Amino acid sequence: MIRIAALACLLATCLGLGFSAHADEGMWTFDNLPLKEMQSQYQFTPSADWLAHVQHAALRVKDGCSAAFVSGDGLIITNQHCIGECLASLSSPKRDYTSDGYYAYSREQELRCPQMEMEQLTDSHDVTAEMSKRLKGLSGDEYADAFRDISSTLEQVCADGDTHRWSCEVVDLYHGGRYVLYKYRRYQDLRLVFTPEYAVAAFGGDPDNFNFPRYSLDVALLRAYDRDQPVQSEYLALATSTPSVGELVFAAGNPGNTARGRTLAELKALRDDDLTPALVYYSELRGMLEEYAHEGADQRRMAYANLGEVDNLIKSHEGQLEALQDQTALERKAADEQALREWVLADPARKAEYGDPWNAIAVAEQRQHALITRYRMLEQGWGLESRLFDYARLLVRGVVERDKPNGRRLPEYRDANLPQVEQMLFSDAPVASDYEELMLGWSLTKLREALGADDPLVRKVLGRDSPEQFARRAVDGTQLDSAANRQRMWRDADFMEISNDPLIVLAAKVDNAAREVRKQYEQQVLAVIHSQGEIIARARFARDGTGMYPDATFTLRLSYGQVQGWQEDDRKVPAFTDLAGLYARATGSAPFALPPRWMAAEPQLPAATHLDFVTTNDIVGGSSGSPVIDRDGKLVGLVFDGNIHSLGGDFWYDGDANRAVAMDDQALLVALRKVYNMPALADELVTGHIQAANLAPKASGQ
Amino acid sequence: MIRIAALACLLATCLGLGFSAHADEGMWTFDNLPLKEMQSQYQFTPSADWLAHVQHAALRVKDGCSAAFVSGDGLIITNQHCIGECLASLSSPKRDYTSDGYYAYSREQELRCPQMEMEQLTDSHDVTAEMSKRLKGLSGDEYADAFRDISSTLEQVCADGDTHRWSCEVVDLYHGGRYVLYKYRRYQDLRLVFTPEYAVAAFGGDPDNFNFPRYSLDVALLRAYDRDQPVQSEYLALATSTPSVGELVFAAGNPGNTARGRTLAELKALRDDDLTPALVYYSELRGMLEEYAHEGADQRRMAYANLGEVDNLIKSHEGQLEALQDQTALERKAADEQALREWVLADPARKAEYGDPWNAIAVAEQRQHALITRYRMLEQGWGLESRLFDYARLLVRGVVERDKPNGRRLPEYRDANLPQVEQMLFSDAPVASDYEELMLGWSLTKLREALGADDPLVRKVLGRDSPEQFARRAVDGTQLDSAANRQRMWRDADFMEISNDPLIVLAAKVDNAAREVRKQYEQQVLAVIHSQGEIIARARFARDGTGMYPDATFTLRLSYGQVQGWQEDDRKVPAFTDLAGLYARATGSAPFALPPRWMAAEPQLPAATHLDFVTTNDIVGGSSGSPVIDRDGKLVGLVFDGNIHSLGGDFWYDGDANRAVAMDDQALLVALRKVYNMPALADELVTGHIQAANLAPKASGQ
Repeated sequence: MIRIAALACLLATCLGLGFSAHADEGMWTFDNLPLKEMQSQYQFTPSADWLAHVQHAALRVKDGCSAAFVSGDGLIITNQHCIGECLASLSSPKRDYTSDGYYAYSREQELRCPQMEMEQLTDSHDVTAEMSKRLKGLSGDEYADAFRDISSTLEQVCADGDTHRWSCEVVDLYHGGRYVLYKYRRYQDLRLVFTPEYAVAAFGGDPDNFNFPRYSLDVALLRAYDRDQPVQSEYLALATSTPSVGELVFAAGNPGNTARGRTLAELKALRDDDLTPALVYYSELRGMLEEYAHEGADQRRMAYANLGEVDNLIKSHEGQLEALQDQTALERKAADEQALREWVLADPARKAEYGDPWNAIAVAEQRQHALITRYRMLEQGWGLESRLFDYARLLVRGVVERDKPNGRRLPEYRDANLPQVEQMLFSDAPVASDYEELMLGWSLTKLREALGADDPLVRKVLGRDSPEQFARRAVDGTQLDSAANRQRMWRDADFMEISNDPLIVLAAKVDNAAREVRKQYEQQVLAVIHSQGEIIARARFARDGTGMYPDATFTLRLSYGQVQGWQEDDRKVPAFTDLAGLYARATGSAPFALPPRWMAAEPQLPAATHLDFVTTNDIVGGSSGSPVIDRDGKLVGLVFDGNIHSLGGDFWYDGDANRAVAMDDQALLVALRKVYNMPALADELVTGHIQAANLAPKASGQ
Repeated sequence: MIRIAALACLLATCLGLGFSAHADEGMWTFDNLPLKEMQSQYQFTPSADWLAHVQHAALRVKDGCSAAFVSGDGLIITNQHCIGECLASLSSPKRDYTSDGYYAYSREQELRCPQMEMEQLTDSHDVTAEMSKRLKGLSGDEYADAFRDISSTLEQVCADGDTHRWSCEVVDLYHGGRYVLYKYRRYQDLRLVFTPEYAVAAFGGDPDNFNFPRYSLDVALLRAYDRDQPVQSEYLALATSTPSVGELVFAAGNPGNTARGRTLAELKALRDDDLTPALVYYSELRGMLEEYAHEGADQRRMAYANLGEVDNLIKSHEGQLEALQDQTALERKAADEQALREWVLADPARKAEYGDPWNAIAVAEQRQHALITRYRMLEQGWGLESRLFDYARLLVRGVVERDKPNGRRLPEYRDANLPQVEQMLFSDAPVASDYEELMLGWSLTKLREALGADDPLVRKVLGRDSPEQFARRAVDGTQLDSAANRQRMWRDADFMEISNDPLIVLAAKVDNAAREVRKQYEQQVLAVIHSQGEIIARARFARDGTGMYPDATFTLRLSYGQVQGWQEDDRKVPAFTDLAGLYARATGSAPFALPPRWMAAEPQLPAATHLDFVTTNDIVGGSSGSPVIDRDGKLVGLVFDGNIHSLGGDFWYDGDANRAVAMDDQALLVALRKVYNMPALADELVTGHIQAANLAPKASGQ
């Protein structure tokens, strides 16, 4: 699965830079499509209406996925793996929606996801001139402050005082080549309508992840509400049949971040200081959670609510690491970089204008090497893995930050982002104390390991406790497990009165050190990479001109391609799988076990129904949940993964082997009708409107 | 801790190649010491007697450590972390020697370690001429077969028909520059006399591992027996006082393997195809075992018997990886390599003689990349982690191999090695079924992940089972948990009759594939690296002459250096720690908790007694348990670790920061007398002879 974590999309990973594209390559902005290439290769040019329609139907899932409206009554399609947090929040020891799926047979049964948010891109506006004017000649702190000020101002004006309804964001395309102000309509009341059993959504589990042939129904349907009424929306109608091999298809979604324009020094740093440590960290977490899952039903539920993402992260990191260990590819990259450097050096004027941004970035990467461990542990949460701690930090920082002028705050506390903070903080998702203790204790061990037992902060935090003892006392003693308490603390100006809460105390103890290393990291690493990368981008523009696509930035893009298998060594991988293949692969043992209702339904299901398919669309993490659309603008499938070769897609696109993996809509319709007895929901998908049967409450048909 | 796993010392990792050494650098063979340098730097030249004495007192611990005789009655000193397997084997739910330590207050209480073996180097004999004659001009299969044949013949002649008493081994020094036949006296009846609580031996645990200041008493005393009587041996007498800063000290031990002569391609392959995947694998295992330890006392005991080694492996791999990510060091390496290549190319005759071994090795490393995962999973046991499976494989292969002529067998089944195989196989150490299930189930998951769910062998092994289901049935159904059954199977020629044992069936199913990939790996990777490395070594010899030390090969070496702290950034790290420091660091929480008897003894202990110290000796993994010896040939300490900078020691020696970490003998004496009430044992150490008090049985004084 190819979801990204949106918070990982920091400046450094969201830098964009373009290339001259190969056939089917590219994650294009809607206003700069390679129309000529599309026309010449596929004899199709999307109209302005086609594009506007698709744009308005497409959605961004705030924490790292894509989605789309699929009925005029606010029905939304995305992947099950994109709503894991919602399922975990709604589950309890008695009802495990993560494992069992969820089926709303009436609108009253539609369950609100406590912390979910989606955004619809309604408007965009080029602000390059304003931004460039304010940023010109600045660097370091001044640059970062000015960037923050101007974008904050632009975003505030754009949201027009209604940050609950609108979210605005200055997006940096082409690595500073273009700044665009995106305006989103926010949807925060999202209710779960349908998602199948985990065993079906994630059929094949980790072994099949990033592989094909693939047999998953990785889908979820939600409904957006506004003031308790279904949202009326533009939507993608379902195509009436499965696409054919070679057929032109589009994917509209929010690829998270690509690094196709990064320097060699950045890629090496990514390999050594990012991917490798993350693999080690998450592998240990995986081992722990796998074993924790054996300790009881509750533990199993909590572990599995998180394991999917951990497994996925490990596999995708391994794929990226493998790509970055490819000596040939790195040498190609080095040659490309060298050519541009020489082009700059060849002319004194260019030399004066551009300087040596490559070296400046290499130096910044050395700083990164020195800072990254502390930054990750203290600020990115590796050493403080706990939802309760996250609450504590939001509260502790919230007091300080909200006192500052908007433009001077940490970005996450700007007015425009406060609704999301409050949504997190006030969520009534239950807190599993045992799990919190496990995670906090473990991650404090990692903190001590990374910074050393003699680090003053580690000593200040742990005192004479072991990490486990500390975690037990903190979780036992905190009041932050209650949403009401958190609300009171957030709103109570006289905040210090509750500051003897052990997690508040912890967050306060850590805060200075965490802010300090964040500041160093942002100034000495991210800002340098950002500003120097902009210089490289300008040089490349100057040499090559435009006509390229920007590196992905977790904003709306359109990719085009065709339904097509590929050649894997001496084996031809077909474009489609079908239900017959699903049953053939079902061994009865997880992750290859089908739920009883699927086993029972087998005789009723047309075996030849397509289940999943692959396309040449250029997608990466964040594209999960992207609708796959035919030339008529109809929905034919839903991206939920890439094949193993797509993992190098962060660095380059290889049209021969790089494939997007999508679920076929037809499989969803068949499942709704024949497996789940939800004909009204299937009809809503087909007609585009809510069915009378779903308007009134009704007993569950399960 | 710096123990190595002896089995990891395959051809590739044991290749040796020397350098011109810097002050204190080098792991020297006893017959080729840098006497001039030693004399000029330390005004000391060891005599032939001095060297013979040290050599005869020194021991090699078969599974990856060093040790030494410390009394004339067979008393041996090594590290506690070197006898973990013994402690686990002897422990049970009722008596946890791993955690509680062990204290024999009489000879009758000395407990035999079921699978332990030590070796004393008695003789060595240069066989370069014989080997070179037979190997000349051979490559690939022919080379490997001839190597096996000739070394097997030499070893057999050397052991003179008594493989229970003698073990012989052709050792490849200077990467084929010199072959030496080493003859060892074997000790297989080793009995545990004393080892402290784990909390003391591993005080500071993983956080303090590879760090200094350090406060561990990582020691174990064993006694070698022959026909039920203590072995009479040469031994190292204890020095009467602690060494002083700047004092010349020697370490005599068996550094496992260094890679100082490896090519750049080998180091990159080590980084990408070895260290990184191992880190990921063992991190997951660590997470699992840490959590498993929470599930009960038995689970805790089993987990902790293995976790120390896993933690250690992770930390040492991280240190090595960090070293190999050092761009400057790699560039220096590249320059050194380039200079030798150019020297070869500069002369047509040299070009004709040496060819391009660097490229040949780079090609072999590409083969390694293609083969390594399968090799590791099937042949090195990553996909089949279980002691019961190891037994099954020994039995299944034993039948086939013992039918072959000695020289054609897999090396581990040659006559000379059969005693060790039998010792493993007939061990009566109890098998913990629950733990076996855990490990087998988990590792089969890794096997499926690594080879893919569609791999034919994976399908053949798992059928419709999940890895956990398979592991449960196999462990429940096997008869291999009984040593008597294993003995019967090993000796019963009509072996097939018991072949419906599920683990025997598994071993048989896997065997062809495992042998096949092992053969490919040995021929296409190891043999090429070996023979081409030999060519590079010859070229280097031709250019630079001798006077170098060979890369470590887990054979006896002497290093020299001085007791000395180092400068860590702006902090001066002192050479010694003392008991006062130990008590100051004890927080009461593991791994910084002292056992009650240590807390009680504090007033009786002289606070200024030195506990641990650091020296500039050039040591690496395998040196654990090396005696630290003064110029009088007296024992002053016991190596048990290196500092964090020593981890780059596999690739280069940095005298400014690379330090060996040793326990001071004086701390051991104080502990025996004042904490453990074992004065007779302390007296044996001081006098060199067993004390009357220990000759007769006596109730435990605990």
